[in-house]
Amino acid sequence: MHELSQQIDFILELDKLKAVYRKALIKADKNRFENSAEHSWHISLTAHILSTYADESVDISRVTLMLLIHDIVEIDAGDTFAFDHHSVLGAQSDKEIAAAERIFGLLPEPQRQKFTSLWHEFEQAETPDAQFAKAMDRILPLIQNMQNEGGSWAQNTVFKHQVIKRNQYLETSAPKLWNYVLAQIDIATERGWLRAE
Amino acid sequence: MHELSQQIDFILELDKLKAVYRKALIKADKNRFENSAEHSWHISLTAHILSTYADESVDISRVTLMLLIHDIVEIDAGDTFAFDHHSVLGAQSDKEIAAAERIFGLLPEPQRQKFTSLWHEFEQAETPDAQFAKAMDRILPLIQNMQNEGGSWAQNTVFKHQVIKRNQYLETSAPKLWNYVLAQIDIATERGWLRAE
Repeated sequence: MHELSQQIDFILELDKLKAVYRKALIKADKNRFENSAEHSWHISLTAHILSTYADESVDISRVTLMLLIHDIVEIDAGDTFAFDHHSVLGAQSDKEIAAAERIFGLLPEPQRQKFTSLWHEFEQAETPDAQFAKAMDRILPLIQNMQNEGGSWAQNTVFKHQVIKRNQYLETSAPKLWNYVLAQIDIATERGWLRAE
Repeated sequence: MHELSQQIDFILELDKLKAVYRKALIKADKNRFENSAEHSWHISLTAHILSTYADESVDISRVTLMLLIHDIVEIDAGDTFAFDHHSVLGAQSDKEIAAAERIFGLLPEPQRQKFTSLWHEFEQAETPDAQFAKAMDRILPLIQNMQNEGGSWAQNTVFKHQVIKRNQYLETSAPKLWNYVLAQIDIATERGWLRAE
């Protein structure tokens, strides 16, 4: 039962992601901060719903698992805001690699290997699955902020060009959604939720 | 773009599940109550990890989607405690059926039909996929409570026979886990976290 005991240790470790808070706000819950566990649930389902716009080569089951695990490294590394300074984001990357080694290392083989490699694939964003997964991780905050008077953008001084760049994975992985996102960014800029310059 | 607009309405509706609180406690976050969105994330991953014990006929991708959506009805119907009185649980069932109709009804076809039927399959618990999904939904609180001095059991006066009955899906869908669960229930009873009679 050693394997089961390793798996249960990992499952219990996951509980800690519910204590990692992001800059995103939950409108439905008195605008409290969102944690990375509930965020991971939300984008996994978002990917399913929006998979009708994905390139045919995208395997939605792999994308789902990728999104379920993509933030687990934050248990050790914490969350960074998407629009933080480059130097902050660079240091974060090293912390996340060490975190992946420790946390996925709780699992027995071959699960350790499978989860570690899926997480690296997501981070590198070179395969169609990873690019669609990244696109989902980025479109959801936009949908949330548009519904909430700019949400985390308005609270943190974010520029239009930053949001366009961040959502660029959509341009190839789901072009119809890319057009929608560009139109939403224009509306957000007109309303003053995003800065034009 | 009418279809996309329906899908975005559904995605925004999901935010509300983050405001539905359960009786389960998050040890890692100062023992606050757990919400149903983060719980759904946790059991979806638990199912992946423990799928090595599942009967061969179980399709883990379908189980994952089932678990991602299984609590969405609580947006309208609220959460009930697993060990509430039968009359409370019966009234809940009617509320959940109406909720499934309204919330999945936000989606365009064929997604509305797919999600509705998957939710009913989970609730009826007759297929191997649904039985394994139910088993995961039930084993996770046990794992959490064993780590947290009885957690929601100790706070709500729960009996040993209730927890055995609730986890019974494991007996056929993952026998190795069933033996583990029975042993854990004995330990919890010895420690006074569950009542023997």
